[in-house]
Order: sequence, then C-alpha cells, then structure tokens
Amino acid sequence: MHQTTVKDIGEQGLLAKLQRFCPADIIGDDGAVLPLLADQNLVVTTDVLVDKVHFSEQTTSPEDVGWRAAAANLSDLAAMGAMPLGITIGLSLPGDTPVDWVEALYQGCDRCLKSYQTQIVGGDICRSSVISVAITAFGQVKPDRVIRRFTAQAGDAIVVTGIHGASRAGLELLLNPDLGQDLCQNERDNLINSHQRPRPRLDVLPHLWNLSEFIPASRNGWIAGMDSSDGLADAVLQICRCSGVGAEIEKSLIPIHPGLTQWVSPEDAIAWALYGGEDFELVLCLPELAAEQLVKKLGKPAAIIGKITTAKAVILQDSLGSGSPEELSLSQGFQHFSP
Amino acid sequence: MHQTTVKDIGEQGLLAKLQRFCPADIIGDDGAVLPLLADQNLVVTTDVLVDKVHFSEQTTSPEDVGWRAAAANLSDLAAMGAMPLGITIGLSLPGDTPVDWVEALYQGCDRCLKSYQTQIVGGDICRSSVISVAITAFGQVKPDRVIRRFTAQAGDAIVVTGIHGASRAGLELLLNPDLGQDLCQNERDNLINSHQRPRPRLDVLPHLWNLSEFIPASRNGWIAGMDSSDGLADAVLQICRCSGVGAEIEKSLIPIHPGLTQWVSPEDAIAWALYGGEDFELVLCLPELAAEQLVKKLGKPAAIIGKITTAKAVILQDSLGSGSPEELSLSQGFQHFSP
Repeated sequence: MHQTTVKDIGEQGLLAKLQRFCPADIIGDDGAVLPLLADQNLVVTTDVLVDKVHFSEQTTSPEDVGWRAAAANLSDLAAMGAMPLGITIGLSLPGDTPVDWVEALYQGCDRCLKSYQTQIVGGDICRSSVISVAITAFGQVKPDRVIRRFTAQAGDAIVVTGIHGASRAGLELLLNPDLGQDLCQNERDNLINSHQRPRPRLDVLPHLWNLSEFIPASRNGWIAGMDSSDGLADAVLQICRCSGVGAEIEKSLIPIHPGLTQWVSPEDAIAWALYGGEDFELVLCLPELAAEQLVKKLGKPAAIIGKITTAKAVILQDSLGSGSPEELSLSQGFQHFSP
Repeated sequence: MHQTTVKDIGEQGLLAKLQRFCPADIIGDDGAVLPLLADQNLVVTTDVLVDKVHFSEQTTSPEDVGWRAAAANLSDLAAMGAMPLGITIGLSLPGDTPVDWVEALYQGCDRCLKSYQTQIVGGDICRSSVISVAITAFGQVKPDRVIRRFTAQAGDAIVVTGIHGASRAGLELLLNPDLGQDLCQNERDNLINSHQRPRPRLDVLPHLWNLSEFIPASRNGWIAGMDSSDGLADAVLQICRCSGVGAEIEKSLIPIHPGLTQWVSPEDAIAWALYGGEDFELVLCLPELAAEQLVKKLGKPAAIIGKITTAKAVILQDSLGSGSPEELSLSQGFQHFSP
C-alpha cells in the first residue's frame, strides 16, 4: 500500500497539515510575534538532529524523535534558568518521507511542549536527501536569575535533580532486547521511557527562585549549573573548567535507577551514570544551606553528590567501597566527528 | 593538495574555529543570554537552506550562501517591523566538507549581520550526508509597531522600497554568462551583486516610526506589509488575501533596474520584477499621505505602485502601454516539492 509522501502533497499541503500544531494567531506572517514579561533577558538555544546520527528507526519512533528534540532544547533553557516562550523547527527531508512520519514528529514535539505550557511558534520545511531537524528554543529569565557555568565557588554543594544512567540503560534495552531479563516489566518500561521521553527539569526553577534567603548577598554571581545532557561527569567538569575550580564527588551519593543495579555491575552502573548522557537533569552548584533546602523541596532522588573545591581536578571518591579516588576527565565524554 | 576537512579537525576543532564569529561573553553555556528593551514583543523567524536546492557552487560562494541566509532572515524581521537581536545557525554537514568552506559561510553571514549591528549568538553543528543550514533570527518590536499582513485597508497606497527583478537578472547572468552583452561592467556587477549580496531593508523601519502623524488614530491596525522575497506579486497577493481586500497596481510605476530594460524585453523585465523573487524589499500598505511622506524620505527608487481596493482581485494595469488589465494569481509563484 502506498503511503502518502511529502512529494505527493507538496510543500503547501504539508504546511497546511502542520499548521494545527502552531497557534492560529501566529501562522501566516514573516515571523512569530510573542509577548515578553517586563525586565527579562532572552535566552536562545539551538540543536540539530540528523537521521542515522541522532535517531534511528530501531530505537526511536517519529513521536519520540519529536519529544526528545523538544525536551533537549527545553532542558537547555532550564539549564540557563529560563522559562520557555516557544520553539521553531527547521526541517529538511526527502520528498519520499511519509506525511504520517512528519506529522508524528510534530505530534511528539507538540506533546512535550504542551506539558510545559509552551508551543511550536514557527518553522520552515525544505527538500533534502536526508532528514535533519533543527530546533531553536527561546525563553525568558530575569537577569539576576540566569544560571551560568562560571559562578561555582569553592565550598558550594553540588546538587543533581534526579537519577543518572537511566537513559543509557533504556537505550541498551532497546538495542539488545535480550538484556536485563531479571527486570520486571515496570522497571523495563521505566528505563526505556527515560530514554524515549526524557523530562526537562523546568519544574526545578521556581524552587530556585525561593532560595534567595539561603544565598549570601555577598556571593559573586547566582547559582552555577548546566544540564546533564552530555553526561553527569561532563557537566561537573564543564562547570569546574568555566569557574576555575575543582570538585569532589562521592560515588555512593550519585542517584542511580534501582533497576539498573539489579542488572549490571556497580562499575557499569556508575559509568552509565557518569558518561551515559541524555538524562536531562540539572547539575547545580550553590551554598550548602541552599542546596539542602533545594533537595528537601525536590525530594528524592534529588541529592547532594559532592562539593566544589579549590583544587583544579574533579575527583570521584569511593568512601563506601574499596576503590581509590579517581580523577575524571573530559576525554571520556562524547565527541561527534570522532574518527 | 589535501584541504583540511571537518573530519580532520573534529567537532570541537571546528567549533573552536567558529567561535570567533560569536561574542565571547555568549559562548560556552547552554544558551545565549540577550538583553531586551523594555515593553517589546519578540519576533522569531526561521529558514532552512539546503545544498543543491537553495545554492550551488556555480552561482554561490560559501560567503554568499552565508550572506544570503542572514539577509533573508533579517528581511523577515524587517517585514515584521522588528530590529534584530541576533541569529542562531544549525549546520548539518558531511565530514569531508572543507573547513575553509564552513569558515567562509560563517564569514559571509557575520559580515551581513555586522552591517546591521547584529551577530551570530549561537549554533549547533552536526554530521550529515548533505549540507543544510537552518537559521533562526529573532528581533524586538514595540507591540504597536508590528507590521502584519492582515491590516491593509481599501484606499491604502502600496509602497515598494526599491527595485524589483534585479536579483533574478543577476542569477540569469551567473547561469548564462553570454547573456546581457550590451551591459556595461558596472551594471552587470550591480545586478549580480543584487543576487549575491541582497540588502534587507531594516533601514526603512525608523522612517515608519516617524509616520504616526500621517496615520489616523481611527485606523484599525498599523501599516500592513511583508517582504518581497517570494516576488512582488506574491507579496501583494498575500497581503490582499490576509486582509480580505484587492489591489490595483500600475505596471509603469514598478521600479525596475535600468540595466534590465536594455537587455530583456519589457515583458520579461516586468515578469522578473513580479515573479523573480529574492529582491528582499518591503511591500507596505498605508494611508496615502503617509505613503507619500515615506517615499519622499526613502527617495528613489522607492515608489507608490498602486492602491488597495475593495475588490477581491489584484489587477495589473497598463495605462501607459497598450496591454489590457491582467489579474495576478498565486499559482504563478514558487513552490518547493513541485513535481
């Protein structure tokens, strides 16, 4: 049976179908017009996803590609402390792409955005030999609430807002369905869901706004932080590099999905938590009292996993285990275009 | 001789080279943070350009691809009445793309933006089998100065801010260097430049802000308009369709490049002006007194080319020539994915 393709209905036909994902008062002009709150900074972030590089038929339905793309961009906004205003989608695709595929992509994107009270506000579609999805997200933040990477200070506690390693575990289960036979269906679904439908932590921001009383006025800059999309280790290393500080992390304090430890070795579990990436949690550095307050508000599995030091190195301690302290480095991270 | 390719230096190497095009205080976080003026709306617009579809080695150097991509997006902002805040570039490209090509692309983009006091504020790079450039531009505009397509009113004069058909003529000269032998070198360069280095009309906006005294307070909505990137005919038709009005345009009033009439028939010249596209001028509908004032401020070749009517049709009059009135239609326009 012939599936209707983009070529069959043409650019105008496809645009007409996709307009239902875009607010009616925004469509049909040279650009989208969005109201801004008073006294805000604009935050802008952009990501490109390419077929066979960032997603594949095997592990990612078009709905999931859309959800994940939207989630990754919202997570970048959360990492800057900004609440979302909307996203644009620049889509390149072959003429033989099924229209259903494109609609499902937009549907996934739209569902993720809607669950964070935001929306697709514009886009462009273009013919190409390979599917590429370029998303730009923009948000607003009060100038004194911008979360930067360079304001971590020795003595700060390091908070993670949730578990790590779950997205990587979910990906492994999708790629190798024979793995993790001891997991119950619920745990399995949960890990796979962590990979397919990650949830950016915009919900954390209002809690941060209430921490002022626990942050000394004398502090140079506000809370430091970023998201853990490229892995927890990468996040701590980037923050330390940008802030000119070091860190000590306690292995046993890193929140790991309980399903994970039933199935892989503790070494693999910690490696996935540190380097797996795509958990889209926030990694925040702030004064200890503020950190304790934040973790209390967020509840488990949010946790303080270590502290910022004056050293230049990021050290992974293992005070409960028998391992010796280990220095983390960026070269263990993820690189596109690597040979 | 082996040219250094993207694969040779890796993603990090390429990013390091491209960072010089991005302000130092914006680099190296999850997103760019930009100050906003008080009491503004945000305007966002996005475009995707794909190799072999929107540009080719024959007619477009990488500098020109960058310039044109930036110019097209700035023109969309101008068409909304917005002054630019910056752009992001989402680049997909094969590993064997020469690094020089990518740097030249950014250079062209940067030069165009700098000449309008704006800049590249973020981006993403990703491996793909085909080059695709997704640009998102954002600008700010006071809510009562947004230029929309749906506020044209019967009686409004239609202003074009400059000549039409020059970009298409320049493209023809590039594709067929034997054409236009009667043109002097200066005219030839000028037409080619119109195609390769179009100039978005952001300079027009401050003139519009000074027209308040010529626009009755009773008017429902401000100036209507859009840019002529898809052709002058398309712009008038879109505005009329969105506003539920018609228009009469006088053929002899459409400003055409003088070089064009020496080289092609009057019929071809007018067809290129109406349907050629990519001239990136503004097409504005406003009360007659305001229009006259605007044309005086802008100087030639800006011109009033006709008026908005209560009819539903857009009629091309030829009062100087012998032709009978002709009704324009969107189907003569440009369509991607057309069979």
